[in-house]
Amino acid sequence: MNSRFIHIALAATLAAPMAHAQPIDYENQEEWKAVHGNSQSPIDVVTSKATTGDAKEPQAIRMGKTRSKLEVEDNGHAVEVEVDGPDAVIRGRHFKMAQFHFHAASEHTINGEHAPLEGHFVFKAADGRLAVVGVMYRPGAANALAGRVLQAISKSKKGELPSSDISSLLPRNKAYYHYLGSLTTPPLAENVEWYVLKEPVSMSEAQLDEFRKHYPHNNRKIQELNNRPLVAYPMGRKGA
Amino acid sequence: MNSRFIHIALAATLAAPMAHAQPIDYENQEEWKAVHGNSQSPIDVVTSKATTGDAKEPQAIRMGKTRSKLEVEDNGHAVEVEVDGPDAVIRGRHFKMAQFHFHAASEHTINGEHAPLEGHFVFKAADGRLAVVGVMYRPGAANALAGRVLQAISKSKKGELPSSDISSLLPRNKAYYHYLGSLTTPPLAENVEWYVLKEPVSMSEAQLDEFRKHYPHNNRKIQELNNRPLVAYPMGRKGA
Repeated sequence: MNSRFIHIALAATLAAPMAHAQPIDYENQEEWKAVHGNSQSPIDVVTSKATTGDAKEPQAIRMGKTRSKLEVEDNGHAVEVEVDGPDAVIRGRHFKMAQFHFHAASEHTINGEHAPLEGHFVFKAADGRLAVVGVMYRPGAANALAGRVLQAISKSKKGELPSSDISSLLPRNKAYYHYLGSLTTPPLAENVEWYVLKEPVSMSEAQLDEFRKHYPHNNRKIQELNNRPLVAYPMGRKGA
Repeated sequence: MNSRFIHIALAATLAAPMAHAQPIDYENQEEWKAVHGNSQSPIDVVTSKATTGDAKEPQAIRMGKTRSKLEVEDNGHAVEVEVDGPDAVIRGRHFKMAQFHFHAASEHTINGEHAPLEGHFVFKAADGRLAVVGVMYRPGAANALAGRVLQAISKSKKGELPSSDISSLLPRNKAYYHYLGSLTTPPLAENVEWYVLKEPVSMSEAQLDEFRKHYPHNNRKIQELNNRPLVAYPMGRKGA
């Protein structure tokens, strides 16, 4: 890739509103406007457009501790679970899980198709970097932990669960589609690494219905990709 | 760190304008406003506030190829050099250098002090992630490559240099202060990893003056850190 191409791609990614050869008024910086909104989430994952990640880099998502006490809450816009402890090494960097929550229907689509439900597992690194792992839930066998999460808030807005293994809400294979995006609720901040896992996890129809009773429609519309790269980490690799 | 603390820190970092327990109007998403401007660059690097990075992660900045043909330009707001080829592995991930350019005085300050000049080496990863390596230039011995860069645009706005080793514009020791910030010129996009190198590089007073003749004041004001973590990667470590 030559430098001019990178430069153009960079400018396109950032959608620079100011031509590069324009002067910049350093005496009136308060008039500078931050331009955003072109790297938002969710997106439609068009799998044919994904490029393969660099095999020489650490690429895998490796979960560390997966047990935690769970504080479940219907927080007014989603069923959310606060956790204490779960961690992961994502592409070589250590992240701690802060919470996970659910959107119906799925926020991301894969080749235009929604799943009935999507879980967002929100991780934070020591430098403040956010990474969100998205999991698609599809109808099938009941998921025991999903049942206990729903049960915990069946009678009030908040409930606690003793130490539980959240790995049952994640697929075994952590192959993913990765892109740079945003939070999907206000403040919609764009400092988020997204990892949409390829392998879905099953829940029973009754469990999916129960999530929809809390929020039948809490998924943000699909946002434009705007030339952002989409990187695939394949199924079946060691450590995937 | 317990989950509640992470949650509060996360909310503080994002300066969420909407209390978390508020409903979100999914039927009128066009009224959602993206809130930004709280993770901007440059910052004052207060070295006593820096925490040490996780020693179990890849932390170093390792330059790969450092030779490139240079296309030098006075672009209307900075002296900028487009490059073709230089690359680096930054904390385990592969980046290609797109360009570097200079600000006078320095944009970042270290414990409140400006350097006369700061170089920004702009790198881009395959997923679109931007990383900028900041280098402070201080008065001392002349820098041969800086002299050739200035010479290339002494008579016109653009000039080319044959294959040159840009490593002479970077310090040998790549120890850094790291935080998440923004571009320092419009569009001020906030998807930027900053690495401000601790070790300065020298230029002669005449060379610093020559940069200032192009732009005596093209440094953005210091922005608030707003609770963002500041991570130090120490001098003297192997690979630093």
